Amino acid sequence: MPDQPSSPSHDQLASKAQAWSALFSEPMSELVKRYTASVFFDQRLWRADIAASLAHAEMLAAQGIISQEDRAAIERGMATITREIEAGQFQWQLDLEDVHLNIEARLTQLAGDAGKRLHTGRSRNDQVATDVRLWLRGEIDLITGLLRELQLALVEVAERNVEVILPGFTHLQVAQPVSFAHHLLAYVEMFARDGQRMLDVRRRVNVLPLGSAALAGTTYPLDRERVATTLGMVDEQGQACVCQNSLDGVSDRDFAIEFSAAASLVMLHVSRLSEELVLWMNQSVGFIRIADRFTTGSSIMPQKKNPDVPELARGKTGRVVGHLMGLITLMKGQPLAYNKDNQEDKEPLFDTVDTLKDTLRIFAEMIGGQVNPATGAKEGGISVNAQAMRAAAMKGYATATDLADYLVKKGLPFRDAHETVAHAVKAAQAQGVDLSALPLATLQGFHAGIEADVFEVLSLEGSLRARQTLGGTAPVQVRRQIARHRERLAVH
Amino acid sequence: MPDQPSSPSHDQLASKAQAWSALFSEPMSELVKRYTASVFFDQRLWRADIAASLAHAEMLAAQGIISQEDRAAIERGMATITREIEAGQFQWQLDLEDVHLNIEARLTQLAGDAGKRLHTGRSRNDQVATDVRLWLRGEIDLITGLLRELQLALVEVAERNVEVILPGFTHLQVAQPVSFAHHLLAYVEMFARDGQRMLDVRRRVNVLPLGSAALAGTTYPLDRERVATTLGMVDEQGQACVCQNSLDGVSDRDFAIEFSAAASLVMLHVSRLSEELVLWMNQSVGFIRIADRFTTGSSIMPQKKNPDVPELARGKTGRVVGHLMGLITLMKGQPLAYNKDNQEDKEPLFDTVDTLKDTLRIFAEMIGGQVNPATGAKEGGISVNAQAMRAAAMKGYATATDLADYLVKKGLPFRDAHETVAHAVKAAQAQGVDLSALPLATLQGFHAGIEADVFEVLSLEGSLRARQTLGGTAPVQVRRQIARHRERLAVH
Amino acid sequence: MPDQPSSPSHDQLASKAQAWSALFSEPMSELVKRYTASVFFDQRLWRADIAASLAHAEMLAAQGIISQEDRAAIERGMATITREIEAGQFQWQLDLEDVHLNIEARLTQLAGDAGKRLHTGRSRNDQVATDVRLWLRGEIDLITGLLRELQLALVEVAERNVEVILPGFTHLQVAQPVSFAHHLLAYVEMFARDGQRMLDVRRRVNVLPLGSAALAGTTYPLDRERVATTLGMVDEQGQACVCQNSLDGVSDRDFAIEFSAAASLVMLHVSRLSEELVLWMNQSVGFIRIADRFTTGSSIMPQKKNPDVPELARGKTGRVVGHLMGLITLMKGQPLAYNKDNQEDKEPLFDTVDTLKDTLRIFAEMIGGQVNPATGAKEGGISVNAQAMRAAAMKGYATATDLADYLVKKGLPFRDAHETVAHAVKAAQAQGVDLSALPLATLQGFHAGIEADVFEVLSLEGSLRARQTLGGTAPVQVRRQIARHRERLAVH
Amino acid sequence: MPDQPSSPSHDQLASKAQAWSALFSEPMSELVKRYTASVFFDQRLWRADIAASLAHAEMLAAQGIISQEDRAAIERGMATITREIEAGQFQWQLDLEDVHLNIEARLTQLAGDAGKRLHTGRSRNDQVATDVRLWLRGEIDLITGLLRELQLALVEVAERNVEVILPGFTHLQVAQPVSFAHHLLAYVEMFARDGQRMLDVRRRVNVLPLGSAALAGTTYPLDRERVATTLGMVDEQGQACVCQNSLDGVSDRDFAIEFSAAASLVMLHVSRLSEELVLWMNQSVGFIRIADRFTTGSSIMPQKKNPDVPELARGKTGRVVGHLMGLITLMKGQPLAYNKDNQEDKEPLFDTVDTLKDTLRIFAEMIGGQVNPATGAKEGGISVNAQAMRAAAMKGYATATDLADYLVKKGLPFRDAHETVAHAVKAAQAQGVDLSALPLATLQGFHAGIEADVFEVLSLEGSLRARQTLGGTAPVQVRRQIARHRERLAVH
Repeated sequence: MPDQPSSPSHDQLASKAQAWSALFSEPMSELVKRYTASVFFDQRLWRADIAASLAHAEMLAAQGIISQEDRAAIERGMATITREIEAGQFQWQLDLEDVHLNIEARLTQLAGDAGKRLHTGRSRNDQVATDVRLWLRGEIDLITGLLRELQLALVEVAERNVEVILPGFTHLQVAQPVSFAHHLLAYVEMFARDGQRMLDVRRRVNVLPLGSAALAGTTYPLDRERVATTLGMVDEQGQACVCQNSLDGVSDRDFAIEFSAAASLVMLHVSRLSEELVLWMNQSVGFIRIADRFTTGSSIMPQKKNPDVPELARGKTGRVVGHLMGLITLMKGQPLAYNKDNQEDKEPLFDTVDTLKDTLRIFAEMIGGQVNPATGAKEGGISVNAQAMRAAAMKGYATATDLADYLVKKGLPFRDAHETVAHAVKAAQAQGVDLSALPLATLQGFHAGIEADVFEVLSLEGSLRARQTLGGTAPVQVRRQIARHRERLAVH
Repeated sequence: MPDQPSSPSHDQLASKAQAWSALFSEPMSELVKRYTASVFFDQRLWRADIAASLAHAEMLAAQGIISQEDRAAIERGMATITREIEAGQFQWQLDLEDVHLNIEARLTQLAGDAGKRLHTGRSRNDQVATDVRLWLRGEIDLITGLLRELQLALVEVAERNVEVILPGFTHLQVAQPVSFAHHLLAYVEMFARDGQRMLDVRRRVNVLPLGSAALAGTTYPLDRERVATTLGMVDEQGQACVCQNSLDGVSDRDFAIEFSAAASLVMLHVSRLSEELVLWMNQSVGFIRIADRFTTGSSIMPQKKNPDVPELARGKTGRVVGHLMGLITLMKGQPLAYNKDNQEDKEPLFDTVDTLKDTLRIFAEMIGGQVNPATGAKEGGISVNAQAMRAAAMKGYATATDLADYLVKKGLPFRDAHETVAHAVKAAQAQGVDLSALPLATLQGFHAGIEADVFEVLSLEGSLRARQTLGGTAPVQVRRQIARHRERLAVH
Repeated sequence: MPDQPSSPSHDQLASKAQAWSALFSEPMSELVKRYTASVFFDQRLWRADIAASLAHAEMLAAQGIISQEDRAAIERGMATITREIEAGQFQWQLDLEDVHLNIEARLTQLAGDAGKRLHTGRSRNDQVATDVRLWLRGEIDLITGLLRELQLALVEVAERNVEVILPGFTHLQVAQPVSFAHHLLAYVEMFARDGQRMLDVRRRVNVLPLGSAALAGTTYPLDRERVATTLGMVDEQGQACVCQNSLDGVSDRDFAIEFSAAASLVMLHVSRLSEELVLWMNQSVGFIRIADRFTTGSSIMPQKKNPDVPELARGKTGRVVGHLMGLITLMKGQPLAYNKDNQEDKEPLFDTVDTLKDTLRIFAEMIGGQVNPATGAKEGGISVNAQAMRAAAMKGYATATDLADYLVKKGLPFRDAHETVAHAVKAAQAQGVDLSALPLATLQGFHAGIEADVFEVLSLEGSLRARQTLGGTAPVQVRRQIARHRERLAVH
Repeated sequence: MPDQPSSPSHDQLASKAQAWSALFSEPMSELVKRYTASVFFDQRLWRADIAASLAHAEMLAAQGIISQEDRAAIERGMATITREIEAGQFQWQLDLEDVHLNIEARLTQLAGDAGKRLHTGRSRNDQVATDVRLWLRGEIDLITGLLRELQLALVEVAERNVEVILPGFTHLQVAQPVSFAHHLLAYVEMFARDGQRMLDVRRRVNVLPLGSAALAGTTYPLDRERVATTLGMVDEQGQACVCQNSLDGVSDRDFAIEFSAAASLVMLHVSRLSEELVLWMNQSVGFIRIADRFTTGSSIMPQKKNPDVPELARGKTGRVVGHLMGLITLMKGQPLAYNKDNQEDKEPLFDTVDTLKDTLRIFAEMIGGQVNPATGAKEGGISVNAQAMRAAAMKGYATATDLADYLVKKGLPFRDAHETVAHAVKAAQAQGVDLSALPLATLQGFHAGIEADVFEVLSLEGSLRARQTLGGTAPVQVRRQIARHRERLAVH
């Protein structure tokens, strides 16, 4: 068995500030060192890096490539490093370029030759791909949880507002009355899809590159499936998930792009919800208020309460979409296998994850409120002004379609009914009142068959109740949807 | 039962060139008509539009909302329209704005009142969303098939080139020898992932919006799950897949963005393969040739054979990525529910589908060749210049790592081995020869333990054979992968 | 002097369907022919192509490279072709691949050997770059004119609305009263910047690649500056503008990207204006109406008038931005010199130009109205509901800052004034009235120094008038700006 | 004169951690505070913030709005703050949200009431817009200088390589011989255009928003043109450049997008050059080497020298393009005037500037080398392997066009000449030699008129020399271009 196979010795690591090897006639330029170093941002991968190293060491020992003593030394060393990093005492060094070399160098200080043997049968190319995937898998799980929290917050507010009617808009024009709960549940559908997409992405993230080595695989008898299993990289049937081609293993960044695309969709949904929150808080609309602690004032204008959070979230959509575009541009036209370009995958990915988590967390609380520890009840979510919603729904002849349907039931062809209602609307507009405020006699002037029961049809509540089909806005249907979401989100 | 419920009469359709209704004081401006019309591009949805209408009519009749006679008349009318469109005899009219009104107006000419009843309980908002989903589902199935063809073409060429060695590059610098088959299989992995992603997208595309009506659902007792089942919108367990929220149903365009993101990844992979094909055909590299029928010449330079197809495909990556960015920009900040902005989803989607299908089809043939009907064998795929690949692999000290590993096995610490090999490489460079061309005595000058068996280690074949782990480049491993792909692609 | 130098003969052109030359063992695949052909979209360059050819022929004759007879024959042939294309009688052929070969083949039919001599000293690489630049220059001039029309329309509406007050928003919350004219003039500033940017782009578009030949220049004694001058490619001092490096000349597409970026900014401005127009037409806001001929109704909802045009324009922002991203992706990482990828520059460019022109034209008319030929006056632009604006401005304590300033003038430190006003706003909110509706006594309860003159300060008009500095919203200042724009736009 | 007009008092600033005013029922959530704070990234604007404040104070005093004593106190305070920040001793506080409040709070500690008066007639909305513009103007000047350095480096290397011939590629296929200097000068053209674009952007950046106040202008008699002049915001005629509309002044971010678009073009050019550098260093090509200090090795593969810098630069193109996309998405559909979304403009802008400056600096040195202080000469730029270039140019029948031209001069129609040369190339390919290596007799077999002088035509040098027109690759022409660039870059 080789002594210390393809692991760089501590000396080599220490001398990165000097030339790489005898082949190099001069040390790396300081300018280049800063341009190419990643340790200032990739250090956040440390926990994944250590987990992957431990799984690798466990397998090396099981395969007899390193001794069990070496493995134990590596584990002790890594435990120390973990404590140091958690305590903020670890010395990150630019000269050691990245998170991998920083940890490996320290391990070799702590564990001596055992540390030098850890790198057997791997390279930084497959190591970094493994670390990013492990890290991202964890973040996806957090994001999935936060998406669930946000859905729950929306469902809770919906539950309290099933009978609250606001004007449903198409083209931002009053169209038909809808339940405010129904409106909120549209966003629940969006975030539910986001959750599904995250799970699909997770399946493709959760695949092991380690063992691809630099690009061509390795000469050591690795058991890659063992490492995958140790790291939880298994499918639903418990089968180990391993990159099947070493060239692809070190160069693939599909998972980063796919995650960014899914993240962009999350942010698009947030941007749509934000747009509505901001609109609903405008003084001419006034449908809702958000708690003061989510607003800011102005140092100049004493009356101001600004919805900074939804605005900023809407703006942050650009940030996440920009990262998606950046990652796509990065990969366009890259030949196989690993190229240094790929190092640029990390910062956009990190920032995307941070943005998503912060945004989802703050939205769940802004909408649903936070638990009051004294009472155990949630407080401080959005406040609904049902009267303002109702008043707005009265402004745009939202039940005109219902009147047309009423006339059809009286035997009028729909086209004539449509035209008849258009005339009625015109008359009501001229008087500046809703259809329901026209006297019966006036209505009968448009069609003789109209009777007193028309006022039920022209009411917002009547209109709402009539739309009972699956997915419709009738309270009975909306309650059914709430129950479905409750169950779905609880089971999860 | 109402006579002709919320269906626009033929008269109304015919008069779109005039005002919409009594509410409008003037007809639509010609400028606006052209700006807002979609019939010139959305007519490609006609088959989906008719299929959805037939499923809707079948359900309306089953629910007793229209009569069976009406249903039969609608079916006869649609059969006629189908023939007319297929024969190129259908009169598409700008004044009828879009594919839906064009078909409905013609149906009403053909089927009279029955035609007028078809629109009961639906609106164009849910109709167009349904059509686009149905159409896209079919296109995804075609694309999945084409992805499979391309994978098969790559596998076939790989099969013939398992023992062919080319220099594996990292940073476009010679790194280690790899099997040309192994290299091609990296792309098979990429396109296999693309296929999986398309299936994931398909699940979210294959959900029925119809029944959402304008935005709030409808007052008619529709059976939406029946329609979904008729249209094959069912999950793996055969359960009908129906949009559960009407506001979401008419405004959701996630599926278009998600498809475009998946398509962008396909094109990124094509761009990477194209980059390599173009590079490999450069005269200084000369690894492959593609058939003359995939190249173009120059009217000026008599010696030219240009790889237009991979270049153009690489360029078309931009087109598809651009459409993704366009769709994202489109949806950013849109309030609920349907807004006219959404009409802009179609052209990018159509062009993305066309680009993908053309590109995949042409790549499968360019790489794998086409079947000669006379012999039944494929001919005319890429030609491999194994000698040029081998010669290139000899240029960059591709087996230097193997020498270092050899020294480690002789007991040298890796760091010293690495440094020793660097000195040997330097000496070989000075003489302008490969390591394997250095005399044994010279090699022994770098380390006394080197023996004659080193030349096996320094050979390309020895290096290749040594990388046998799962995913590695050793022929035995590559053949295993080919067998796996063969089975996977056959089962499909 | 060579007879017919580097011009492809008519025979060669005719045989493009066959192999390119003896070097090619088979004709181009039909699939490839369609994939690589551009004639279906690049035929719109025909006028530029002919203009460039005529300038080239004129120079060739002046330099003695071709005879004056040949030049005359070329001119006659091109005149015929121009008539044929204008009459829709020209036979565009896929087999002739692009606009250049189609025209050249026809010219050779018409002008015989003279036609064959036209291609002397040029290649399609420099020819297409020249055509696109010439075409784009013309389109930029049209767009600049349309930007001016739109500015004029905005200025006209502003002129009529200097004293109309609407609530100025920050964060979509009522901030301070502003003149509606002032608000519209903000967009005039944006479109004025767009116009300047277009002029900057134009300078870099208006440079001649012709004479770069395939990539390295040509052996013929061309006078490139003469061609540039003939084509109007001159700077402000009348100096010919010529690409100074042939490799750059054939491969540069900066101008397309730069134009697309400028176009994206135009569309961003349109998207912002559209967002406001749509908002202002919402029934709860009701600030404006647009003419019926710019709206659409619903076949279902009889009361609907939808602002399709601004919505669609907002959506088309995505299209233009997508093209920008597509072009950037296209050029990323391309080595010198001409690569086939570049053919993909045309469709996004064409579509961007079309979208811009249509959108600007329709917005100018939708906002400013159109000239009634009977009266010579413009009619049908946006209608302003000054009362609704005023009412909205009364809702959000828009003059709170003015009260704080008033208190400061009474000697209160600003911080105390700010806090005092916050208390006053709180009290007014509790009563549901504006500050100006609080009795003097109540106001004096917050600060004893408040006197009757406070009601002037609390009025919308008083607030407006007080902001007189350059760029402020006071009517006197707004009128000054209108005068400046009038002069600027007239001089142009 | 008011005591301390619309300036927030120190107390208010200090209490930002508490509620904004009496209107707010609770302090800002900690989550929100972090989500919305910008001080951690916008502190880099400090120098611009102080400069703008000093110019504002100077004007306030000149206009009699504050006293000369106050102005002096402000200047002394700002001098202290400058020293504190430069020394790293300034206490940046999250509770004070942004750079503006941090500096203003400290100023008020230092200068008392004078500090409180500084904010008169301005708001943070116009303040931040001013700061970003001032800062960006300075960065553009640095970038313009770096673009010039890079051009000079390219010109210097070109100067030494006018006679060095490499194969000019189209479609990455050998096309015609070109001078290596000519090739490098193509990039000089690109970076020269970038420099021009930066100047155009600068003109639109260099305009003063200050005085727009919150959105509507201010009631104080400001002299905005005086402030602009003090800050150097003047045009070429020395006229003050001031935003003419306050709503536009606070909400415009065109300049950021326009700068990002110009920056994306710079990076596209860098990506193209990088692509070529990486290709040229591949062992099969071997045209150049870059100095060891710009390369990295591999801890595994002892023979590796990787071109990390050009690869990473190519990757960073994605980053800059992503920021452009992010900024565009940010602004899409934003209503007037200032919205919090705009805060998201800073990080992408900062990162774009950093990336550009680092990349340009490192490229100038990597290509041109650095000055050896001992000798005053530059050392360590790229090394050119003229022999490898020449050998590559001999591989692809680069002078075939010259042979065709030769035959045309012998009286052959070009089409026949083109075909004849294709046959000759075919024969030479079969023998595996260049055209120039065919015996005269063999050549005469293709056309009897060929004489011994053909070998001059078939030589790379002969081909090069023949392309003398403006922009061509002939050494005489290339030297003329070098002289032009020298003068242009010196004058600058």
